[in-house]
Order: sequence, then C-alpha cells, then structure tokens
Amino acid sequence: MRTGQTHLFIPGPTNIPERVRQAMNVPMQDMRAPDFGELTLGLFDGLKKVLRTESGRVFMFPGSGTGAWEAAITNTLNPGDRVLMARHGQFSTLWVEMAQRLGLDVEVVDVPWGAGAPVKEFARRLGADREGRIKAVFVTHNETATGVTSNVVAVRQALDECFHDALLFVDGVSSIGSIDFRMDEWGVDLAVTGSQKGLMLPAGLGILGVSDKAMAAAETTTMRRAYFEFADMVKMNEGGYFPYTPPTQLFHGLRASLDLIFEEGLDNVIARHRRLAEGVRRGVHGMGLELVAEHPSLYSDTVTAIRVPEGVDARDVLRIAYERYNTSFGSGLAKLNGKVFRIGHLGDLNEGMCLTALSVAEMALAEAGTQVEFGRGPAAAMAWFTGQAESPALRVAAE
Amino acid sequence: MRTGQTHLFIPGPTNIPERVRQAMNVPMQDMRAPDFGELTLGLFDGLKKVLRTESGRVFMFPGSGTGAWEAAITNTLNPGDRVLMARHGQFSTLWVEMAQRLGLDVEVVDVPWGAGAPVKEFARRLGADREGRIKAVFVTHNETATGVTSNVVAVRQALDECFHDALLFVDGVSSIGSIDFRMDEWGVDLAVTGSQKGLMLPAGLGILGVSDKAMAAAETTTMRRAYFEFADMVKMNEGGYFPYTPPTQLFHGLRASLDLIFEEGLDNVIARHRRLAEGVRRGVHGMGLELVAEHPSLYSDTVTAIRVPEGVDARDVLRIAYERYNTSFGSGLAKLNGKVFRIGHLGDLNEGMCLTALSVAEMALAEAGTQVEFGRGPAAAMAWFTGQAESPALRVAAE
Amino acid sequence: MRTGQTHLFIPGPTNIPERVRQAMNVPMQDMRAPDFGELTLGLFDGLKKVLRTESGRVFMFPGSGTGAWEAAITNTLNPGDRVLMARHGQFSTLWVEMAQRLGLDVEVVDVPWGAGAPVKEFARRLGADREGRIKAVFVTHNETATGVTSNVVAVRQALDECFHDALLFVDGVSSIGSIDFRMDEWGVDLAVTGSQKGLMLPAGLGILGVSDKAMAAAETTTMRRAYFEFADMVKMNEGGYFPYTPPTQLFHGLRASLDLIFEEGLDNVIARHRRLAEGVRRGVHGMGLELVAEHPSLYSDTVTAIRVPEGVDARDVLRIAYERYNTSFGSGLAKLNGKVFRIGHLGDLNEGMCLTALSVAEMALAEAGTQVEFGRGPAAAMAWFTGQAESPALRVAAE
Amino acid sequence: MRTGQTHLFIPGPTNIPERVRQAMNVPMQDMRAPDFGELTLGLFDGLKKVLRTESGRVFMFPGSGTGAWEAAITNTLNPGDRVLMARHGQFSTLWVEMAQRLGLDVEVVDVPWGAGAPVKEFARRLGADREGRIKAVFVTHNETATGVTSNVVAVRQALDECFHDALLFVDGVSSIGSIDFRMDEWGVDLAVTGSQKGLMLPAGLGILGVSDKAMAAAETTTMRRAYFEFADMVKMNEGGYFPYTPPTQLFHGLRASLDLIFEEGLDNVIARHRRLAEGVRRGVHGMGLELVAEHPSLYSDTVTAIRVPEGVDARDVLRIAYERYNTSFGSGLAKLNGKVFRIGHLGDLNEGMCLTALSVAEMALAEAGTQVEFGRGPAAAMAWFTGQAESPALRVAAE
Repeated sequence: MRTGQTHLFIPGPTNIPERVRQAMNVPMQDMRAPDFGELTLGLFDGLKKVLRTESGRVFMFPGSGTGAWEAAITNTLNPGDRVLMARHGQFSTLWVEMAQRLGLDVEVVDVPWGAGAPVKEFARRLGADREGRIKAVFVTHNETATGVTSNVVAVRQALDECFHDALLFVDGVSSIGSIDFRMDEWGVDLAVTGSQKGLMLPAGLGILGVSDKAMAAAETTTMRRAYFEFADMVKMNEGGYFPYTPPTQLFHGLRASLDLIFEEGLDNVIARHRRLAEGVRRGVHGMGLELVAEHPSLYSDTVTAIRVPEGVDARDVLRIAYERYNTSFGSGLAKLNGKVFRIGHLGDLNEGMCLTALSVAEMALAEAGTQVEFGRGPAAAMAWFTGQAESPALRVAAE
Repeated sequence: MRTGQTHLFIPGPTNIPERVRQAMNVPMQDMRAPDFGELTLGLFDGLKKVLRTESGRVFMFPGSGTGAWEAAITNTLNPGDRVLMARHGQFSTLWVEMAQRLGLDVEVVDVPWGAGAPVKEFARRLGADREGRIKAVFVTHNETATGVTSNVVAVRQALDECFHDALLFVDGVSSIGSIDFRMDEWGVDLAVTGSQKGLMLPAGLGILGVSDKAMAAAETTTMRRAYFEFADMVKMNEGGYFPYTPPTQLFHGLRASLDLIFEEGLDNVIARHRRLAEGVRRGVHGMGLELVAEHPSLYSDTVTAIRVPEGVDARDVLRIAYERYNTSFGSGLAKLNGKVFRIGHLGDLNEGMCLTALSVAEMALAEAGTQVEFGRGPAAAMAWFTGQAESPALRVAAE
Repeated sequence: MRTGQTHLFIPGPTNIPERVRQAMNVPMQDMRAPDFGELTLGLFDGLKKVLRTESGRVFMFPGSGTGAWEAAITNTLNPGDRVLMARHGQFSTLWVEMAQRLGLDVEVVDVPWGAGAPVKEFARRLGADREGRIKAVFVTHNETATGVTSNVVAVRQALDECFHDALLFVDGVSSIGSIDFRMDEWGVDLAVTGSQKGLMLPAGLGILGVSDKAMAAAETTTMRRAYFEFADMVKMNEGGYFPYTPPTQLFHGLRASLDLIFEEGLDNVIARHRRLAEGVRRGVHGMGLELVAEHPSLYSDTVTAIRVPEGVDARDVLRIAYERYNTSFGSGLAKLNGKVFRIGHLGDLNEGMCLTALSVAEMALAEAGTQVEFGRGPAAAMAWFTGQAESPALRVAAE
Repeated sequence: MRTGQTHLFIPGPTNIPERVRQAMNVPMQDMRAPDFGELTLGLFDGLKKVLRTESGRVFMFPGSGTGAWEAAITNTLNPGDRVLMARHGQFSTLWVEMAQRLGLDVEVVDVPWGAGAPVKEFARRLGADREGRIKAVFVTHNETATGVTSNVVAVRQALDECFHDALLFVDGVSSIGSIDFRMDEWGVDLAVTGSQKGLMLPAGLGILGVSDKAMAAAETTTMRRAYFEFADMVKMNEGGYFPYTPPTQLFHGLRASLDLIFEEGLDNVIARHRRLAEGVRRGVHGMGLELVAEHPSLYSDTVTAIRVPEGVDARDVLRIAYERYNTSFGSGLAKLNGKVFRIGHLGDLNEGMCLTALSVAEMALAEAGTQVEFGRGPAAAMAWFTGQAESPALRVAAE
C-alpha cells in the first residue's frame, strides 16, 4: 500500500499547485451568465503575457495540446500545402504524422533523437525554395521525448535571411511558461501549448497564440474544420464566451495559475526552471549517467532524458520507482523505450523535490542492477543549489 | 453581493454532486503509469451501461459534445455523403451547420421550433431513396433549446420499414443518463453525449457510443481527421491509455458519477427525472404559462422551455433571477431569444431544488412585469410531489 | 437514495460558503513557522470588528461554543460566586447547569420558553443587591431553542441604573455576526460565540470577546482551569501563536469568512438576516402557523421556532423533510420536542433558499397530517421579497 | 516566492493524506440527523482498534490533545490527589504544570532531557507508597521534544510488582497510531491522543481511551468539570451524538484515516514508521550528527531530535530550511532551543519524503555554517531503504 506524497516527475501533466487545486474546486456555474467574461477575458490577456505577444490572438480550445496542433494547421493551411518539418523525437514525429493525415505535403528532415531542430538544413531548403512553395516551417521548441530545446530564433533568422514568407509554427507545449519563449520577438505565427505543463493545470485546454499574419491566412484557407474553427471562437470570445460548453473549472484554475506566474514573475519562473534543471543535470552527471541531449546547448530546462547503462533496462527503473517509491518518472518513448528514463522538472517545483527525484532515481537504478554509489547524485545537486558549485557558464566555457 | 447557494437551473453544465467534486479534487498523476487502466477501463464499461449497449464501443475524447459530433461524422462518413437531418431548434441547427462545414451533402427538413424530429417526413424521404444515397440520418434526441424529446424508436422503425441501410446518428447530449435511451435496442449507430449533462461532470469529455456497423464504416472512410481519430483511441484504450494527455481529474469524477448512477439505478434515475420534470411542468402550467414544446408527448424530462407572456421580455426574467436571486435559468436561444426562458432539470436534483426554481421564476417574472399570483407554481408542483395530484397519464388522456 | 443539494436549515452548524470551503482545503502547515502570525493575527482584528469592540480582547479556543462558555466563567469568576441567570429555553438552561457544575451560586429566574430575558426581574434583583453579591449577570442574546432574541441593552441599562458592578456575560453563539451586537456600546464583558453559526465555519472554535474589566478580573480569580486559561493564550497570541496545536484549516476558513462578511459589510449582513427572516416568518404565518416567540419584538432573525398544530407530531415533519426531501430542520428541544420544529436562517443564505425551506415545510407538514393549502407560505414570503408587501414596521404598528 | 510542495517534517500536525483531505471537504450537515450515528459510531470502534482496547471506552472531545489531558485528569482524580510524574522534555513538563494547576499534588521526578521515563525511580516510589497515596502514575509514551520513547510496559510492571492500585495515565499523543501501543495488554487506564499526529488529521479532536477502572473512578470524583465531562459524552455518544456541536468534517476525515490505517494494517503502519525512522536516523548519523535521545533503545519512531554541532545555531538551520527550501522542521523546545532541530517522521510518509528531509537538512546545515559533506546523509538512508545495509538489530548488538 502506498503512503505519503506521490512524487510526480513526468514532463507533464505536472504537479498542480495547491492554490490552483483550490481554485478549481468550485460548483458549476452558468457559462452564459452576463458576468462570465469577468472570469474569462482576463485569461486571454494573461496568456498573451505568457506567450509574450501583444499583437497576437490567443485561443483556448477544450481539448489537449494535440487538438491545438490540429487547430493551428486546419485554420491556416490549405490541403496539399508543402510544409517543412523535422523528426528528432517522439513528439516531432507525431506532429509530422498529423500533418500528413490532414493532407499536407510534408518535407521531413530526419535528424538523430537527441539533436535539435536542423536549422542549417532548414535554412538550406528555405533558401532553395525560390517559388515559396513551402507554406510553413514547424519547430518543436522543446522535444519532450529527448529533453532537447531547439533554437527557434535561429529558424526565424533562416526565414528572414532568405526573405521567406512561410508561417512559423512552434510546438511550445513543454516549453511555454517554463523556458524562454517570445512569440512577437521571434516572429512565431502559431504557438501551440496545453494547460497541463508550465501552466500547472490538468489537461483539458489546447492553447494557441496566433499572429496577425496567421489570422489573415485563416480567412481564406479551405481545409475542413468545425470544432477547431478560429472564426467561431473569435466571434464568441469577444464577450468572454465560447461556441460550446467550456471547462469552467479549468478557467478558474488558469486564473490562479496565471496569478502565481505573475506574482513570481515570468522571468523568475524561467530562471527557476533553469536553476532547478541545472541541479537535476548535475545530479545525473554526478551519478555518472549521460543525457540523450547531444550537447549542453540543447539541454532542456523542463525535462531531462537519461540513458541507463548498458545491461540495465530503464523499464525496471521506472517500475521500481513507481511500485516501491511512489514515484513517477517519464518513460523512454518509442525507440528510446528501455534505454532511457526521463525526469520532468517543470511547473510547480522546488529544490527539495528535485533532490527527491535524484534520490529515488539512485535507489531505483541500484535496485534495477546499476552500480550506484549512493548520494553522489543528490550531492552534486546540493552543491549547486547551495551555491557551492561553479556556474554552468564556466563549465560550458571549459568544455 | 451574492450570498447563499447558487441556484443553477440551466440545461447543462449541471450541478456537480458533492461526491463527484470530492473525487475530482486529486493531485495530478501519471497517465502512463502501469495501473492507470484500473481507473479508466471501468469507465468504458460503465458508459456502455449508461448507453445501454453491449456490442457497441465507447470513446471519450478530451473536448466537448460538439467535438464528439465531429468525431462521429469524420470517422464514419465520406466527403460529399448525403445525410438526412432536421432543424427544429438551435442545437439541431448547429449540427446541420457542422455537417455542411465538414463537406456533407445535407438534406435538411425544417420544422417548427417546438416540434420533434419529423418522423413521417424522414420515413417518406428514406422510402424514396431507392438507391441508398442517404448515408446517415441524424436525430436530436433531446432538443435542449426547445425542451423537446424526439422519438428515436420511430426513426429506427422508419429505416427498418424501408430496409434502409443509413447509419443512425443520435445527439443524446442532453438526454443520455437522464431520459430513456437504448443504443442497442433502438439500433443507434452513433450516440453522442458529453460529460456536463446527465453525467454531472464539468465539460471536458466528448463521449460516443459507436455500433459495430459504424466501426466497420470507420475503417474505410476518407474524411480527414487526426485529433478525433477512432483508430488511435482504439489502439490506446485497450490498456486504458489515451493517444494524448487525457483529463485525469474528470476520469475520477466520472467514476464517482457512474457509481452514483448505478447506486440509484439507471431506471430510477430516469424515473426521477420524469417525476421532477412533471413537477416543474405542473408548476409552469400552474403559473398559467405555456411551453415551447408543441405537445405533451414531446415534453422533455431534462429541460422545460417556457414562453413568457406578450409584452414581457424573457431577458429581463433571466437578468432579475441572476442578479437578485442568484439563480441561473437557460436563455431563449436564437429566434427564441427574449421570448423564452428555460428551466434545466437534469442531473443531481431533488424536489426542493425544483421548488426553488419555480419560486424564483415567479418572483423574477413578477418583477419583469408579468401578472403573477404568487405561490401558484410551487403549489401545483407540491401537489404532484406529495402525491396529491392525479397522474399525468390521466391528465393527458383527459385533454 | 438522496440526490441533489442537501437543504440545511438548522440554526447551526450553518451552510459553509464555497469560498470558505475552498480556503479550508489546504495541506497541513507548521503552526510554529515564523510567518504563522500573518495568518492568525488578522483574525483577532477581524473578530473584534464582528464583535464591535475596540478595547476588548478576542480569544479563539479550539473547542465549541460550550467550551467558550466555560472559559468565560472559569477565568473571571471565583468558586461560589453568585450569578444571575434566566432559563427560557434549552440553551439558557444548559448554561445554568454549567454554572452550577462549575461551583457558582446561581440565582435562576425561570420564565416561559418563548419569553425573552426577564429584564424587569433582573433589574429588581440587581437593585435589591445592595452589597454587590451578584458577581455576574448572564444573558442569552439569542435563545436558539425558541427563536427569541433578548434585549441586552436593557440589561445593561438595568445594571447601570443601580450602579451595579456585576460582569455582563452574553451568549451570542447564534446572534453574533448575524444579529446586531455591540460589545463595547452595550458594555458586554464576556461575549461568547462559536465558529459554526454566523461565521459560517465548521464547529471547532470557541470564540470570546473579553472586556478590560473582565481581563482584570481574570488576573485574580481562583477557579481551576488549564486548557481554557486566558493567560496562556494572551502570552502566545501576541505573535499569532497558540499554547497548543490550533485548527489551522479553520483559521484559513475564518479568514475567508471574515472577508466575506466585510465585503458584504457587517451592517448589510445583519440587514440581510433581518430581511430573509422576515420572509420566513411571513411564510410561516401565511401557512397559518404560530411561532414559539411570544411577541414580534422577540422574533429572532437567525432561527424561527414554529408550533405545529394540535394532533400533528413535529417529529414526523422533521423525519419526512429529512427522508423524503433531503432537508434538515431544527427539532423541538426538550419540552418543545414533538411540538415544534425550527427553521434556521442564518449565515450564508438567500431568498431562494428560504423559499425552499418554506416549500419543503409545507410538503412535510402536509404529509405529517397537517391541513395545508399549498403555496400559501412561499407566496407570503415572495410578496415580501419582491417588495409587494407592506413593511413589518407598519404591520407591527397595526397590531 | 515559494513554489512546489511544502515539505512538512514537524512532529505534528502531520501531512494530511489526500483521501483524508477529500473526505473532509464536504458541505455542512445536521449533527442531530437520525442517521448521524452511521458516521460516528464506527469511529469509536475504529479508535478502539487503534488503541488496541476492547474493554475500554473512547472519547472524542472537540479540542486538542491538551484538552484530552485535562479531561483525563478532571474526570478521574480528586483535588489534592497525589500523582507521580516525570519531567524529561517539554511535553512532560507541560503535563506536570497542568496537573499542578488543576490542584493535584504532583510528585515530580526530574531526569535529563533525552532520558526516558524513570522506571526504576517510579518503581522505588511506588514500592514505598504503602498507603496507596499515589493515585495515578503519568507516563509520556513518546516525548516529542526529545524524540524519546519510554517503556510503558515497564511502568505497568512496576505497578503490578508492588500491587499498586494507581491509575496509569499515558500521553500517547505522538505515539498512538504510529508506535506500538497496547492499551489493554499494558493495563493503561487513560490513554490520551489527538487527531493531528498518527491519525493524520488537522488538530481539533482530543481523543481518550479510558479503562473500566478509570470509568468507575469517574463516577465518584469531585473535580470541577463541565465541557470535558465524561458522563455527558457517554449519554450522547450512545446514539452517535454529542453534547455540543462536534466537528463533523473531522469525523469524515477520521473515517478516511481509519480506513487507510486498517487497509495498510496497523502492524504494517507501525513497521513502516520503524523502517522510515531507522532510515532517518541512519541519515543523521551519516551526517555525523548526534541525537538527543540517550540510547538507541529510546529512539522514537515518530520524531528524531538532532543536536547541531557546537557553534551552529539550530534556529538558523530551521530558518534556512523554511525560507529557502520550503521545508519545516521542528524546533528545539525550551532548553533545547538553538541547540536542536527535529525531524518529524510520522503519519503519511514514504522513503522519498524522508530523503527530501535529509537532503534539505544537509543544505540548511551547510548554509548555517556546519561542515557538511553533501550526500552522506541521504546515502546512509538509501542503503537502508534498498536493503543494502545491515539491520539495526545487528547494529545495536554490536554496540
């Protein structure tokens, strides 16, 4: 029988802060009441701040981030449109699959799982696309399966340098609200996220930031859509309403979650993610393990994917952590299954929790057959958290 | 400043029972944990019982009932397919609109708002469709906008009588779990509902019951879909998992909600809805007001749409009820706006609540300018609830 | 099986507002944390406002109002002290019993249940007490058993007129926060209340307001006490701490409850209680029933005790309301058992809820064998609530 | 700004399990309802199982454990009765103080803080008390201030060996439900506990187990009491009711908490406390620190009191843990203030949480100026938790 707190270190859905839980525990209310907008209108504004967009428009679709992916595509592209995408992890792979299903002509660039978005190759192909046949470029900002954060700014530059007009789609599901993301400054046209990651809510809202350019495109596109129609939302959202019954409880939670983010300060939230992630990474390195991410410049501040040693099955690590220690880590997905486990470190988190993750990881690794010298992982993280370790900048420079 | 309980009498989202609220107030958990199916697999079984289907398959899509409408269409029909639909209220109208947007060739039968599904006209058209060009017939079981329950059995008979092979789609959003609905017995191929009505949960789950015949159709149809793909769900649901992050808290709530339904007994739940609805209707008649529903045989047991007298604006009734009496009634939708208000009486309800609705209605009507003799509405309902009134069967017979 | 909202119309514990429920649903915290006073210190200030005292001191003892009664006595009186008390209902009777148990020499004035505190008799006895042997006068501000509010001001005047120095104890358990109460202005020395009435919390806090004079008395009294020792509280409360583990969750609830009261405005809260109580009383009179309270000037704005007609057993009314209609009324206590039922109307309440109470009362009365013309009760209340009835001032004047 | 879970490692109030939080979050209900006993009667039975008594009676007083102390004394002893007590920590000291306040003639044995109850000295005095003037012996089973568990069985034996008839009082506030305690087997006459420790609830219930012998004593004792009167409780509890408004929400929580305990098995709960406590102690020793408890045989399985090195102020450790790491440890009380910090490890706990405590302790100690080799504490605990360390039996034997 399990006792004590459940230790949740998956890269989403994330731990729900108490204030958010409180806020969601409300009786049902009338989503057509005259004052319903008092609840909802501020949420659009708050999300714009999180996305760092002033000119963009925000949508909240009842559904998941996957639904938001679909909304982004079906509202702004036409059947048969050519788009440029990369596959370097499970989620970028699934996005390619969706684009294909929806009838796009996908130009796929495959790179190793552990690499980032192939900026140079994207630049090359965009440069070669003199006729502007590529209608959109898709970037997975944070590939949750590999713990890799890609360089969206560089993709934007690649587009700009060849004066390419393609829309820039960014999957920010596991980055937005946790890792620096700047929709306007980076010229992102479609930013996609969900409620269950950096926003610290249950799943249930697919969230989009849409640029003016993408909104303009939405007016003429012909891809079939109904549930995910931007125009219906635009019309109803004006007064704070929705074209169909929205998840009111989640709105209350989102209000609390945005309040928490702004009270801490979005920059501080991002800095905290960086600080805690660095502690986790140092802990993992302290254990002598390697990350899936190929280079420190790619390290994700929301999830760390860790390779287990040869001869150890990562599924055993996961199982032992779950069954014996009431702890959930993320599994290795698809081709990484059995070889990798992941520590999610995004959302409502602190040093103590990261140390719990590292401690349980050591125990589970040991019980799964890994040679572990107990305490090495936590020790490295503690040194970092207490300021008794050199800064990562120095470390990176030294490499 | 509002004090006291909020009185919610909209036809959904409905009041959430305390046990369901308790059940949903849980910390986040891992939706890929090995024992996640212990939570979810029983939900599919429970929903099958609510739908009264043994052979059918159940889907739960993160989204709303509108999303479930789309899932039903896109998985089982092909672009350009001819379908037979009626418009007799706002929700049947919206369903027609969705079918058109998704590229179906919709044969629309318009009947007055207040009438039921035009069974005879459907029968005529099906009979005339010798070549089987009609691929599906859509029935809005309970038209929430008008408080009208249509006869699904009669539509089934119409199909059977001319040996027509069309799929039978039923929108049971505001009927399933509250009004008698029998998927297998009635030969329904696609039954659509949502979490926020008879299931007494927040919005967030679009639920479908799908017959074997419809599942077979799904294998060959070519309509574009991704998020709402049956096949992805089938594959993942087997172990109790989902192709994308599901709303775990809602699953806990659904477990509690199904438990409540089965503890009361589905038949008893339906009988209770009938009994309480009859009380509300008697109360409305006691006030001297008329229903939108054209005939007692059409009266809905989940929502009553009430015409206000000439010269009174129903919007004033709604506003006064909301602002002065902390009470939400349903508004008159589209062409009924200003002429009608609705009392939702579905889900977690009892006699006292129905009497509150009638009492507040009397006060709001009076303050909005209606000539009201206070107490007449509640009195008629009380006579019924205490068994001091003749049964409705007698009354109907006498008319 | 019960469905729908529970209708709670007992005179405490009262319905908990949603914001209070939310506020209490927090994880445990350290009651010795350096910032614990941030939670608690404001509560003392808030309670002083509710008690309308500036010079007095507030105590919150983990326990019930009964415990606060004991704290008031044991801290400020000596064994064998003579005190003047009245018995005119169950709670004043219990207070007498406690005073006797604790070794006081109680001079009891018995008056009929339904009468108020016997001001004239108190005045007579105080006037006769030339030697000042009476150390305290006890007044039950609102006798919850009979629905009678006594005149504390008149007792104060009686004391003042004969320059009597006795302490003035007031049981304000079912009045404070709901009925006008002014500790400083009325010269109350010990005001006793609990968390579960006008403060709309669960039971668990016995609350006292103590005047300077009573605090001075507390320094020299010799009655044995330990748990309920003022001095321990004084010492610890300074920093917001407590001498033993306090009910932290209730403190969070109290914060929310005080916020609600001050947002509405204490005067408005009291006016609302008066308005709603008047509606209930009109409803009861509309049904042709009589109150226990002997005269309109004694009518309580928090609870109405209602006599059932001869031949009807009030216990049947209570049972039927509870079993069939999910409604709790207060029972007739002690000598009123079977003859009386009570409608509590204090705390978080509105018009709709009062009408529910009246409607259910009519049904339960009818089913218990009372001759009831349905709708008369609610109708009278509705007329009052909608402003279509003359004001009670006029009515009283006409009597 | 604090983020993430609050890490609560005080020796009560303890972390509330989610199921208990859920259970307590209910609307108010009628504590005089005919079926109220369905909620409460089982609680008495459950508590008897936790106390391991069949013949004893259980009381639940709204209040704290301190109130239960008072109830135990005032119901079973007479003013001026001689009682035998020891002082070896803050809580035993406070109990002595209460006994003196309540007018008992307390024979105090002072032993060092860190020692257990002085069994031999108790035996000597009891043996010398030929006239049976000692009416009761008090034992603090688990001295929360020092982390010392005393030997109640040995005190029982001391009584039996000289055929002494004194009542045996045991303060089991921080032991019952967590450390082996056997009321009947050990001949305990008054067992005192509270809701906020091993029962994992908020504070608010003072709980007593009372033997037949003590119940018999209660019938003739003359100490003044009112609120804490056994007889009132006995009378009302029979039907599951209470003489004054009880904290209903806590009863729901207690039901859930008892269910959790019995689902795990009381023996397993106790074994878990032992296992986790051993991990914490090994961690503390791993850091090179010493316990307040003088000997391993006295080590408490619910709280560990840890001496900080010379030159370090334990208050800094507490402050840093709280402010920087969102972690609450217990402070050093009274004479231990500044020299000691305590880790509470009782109630709803697991390995990960204990490792969090040790990790945060290392960081806070380091930042407070202690020489710390990071990771040593957690490492020692991990070795124990994973079964890679010899058993404590061996260790103790080796000492």
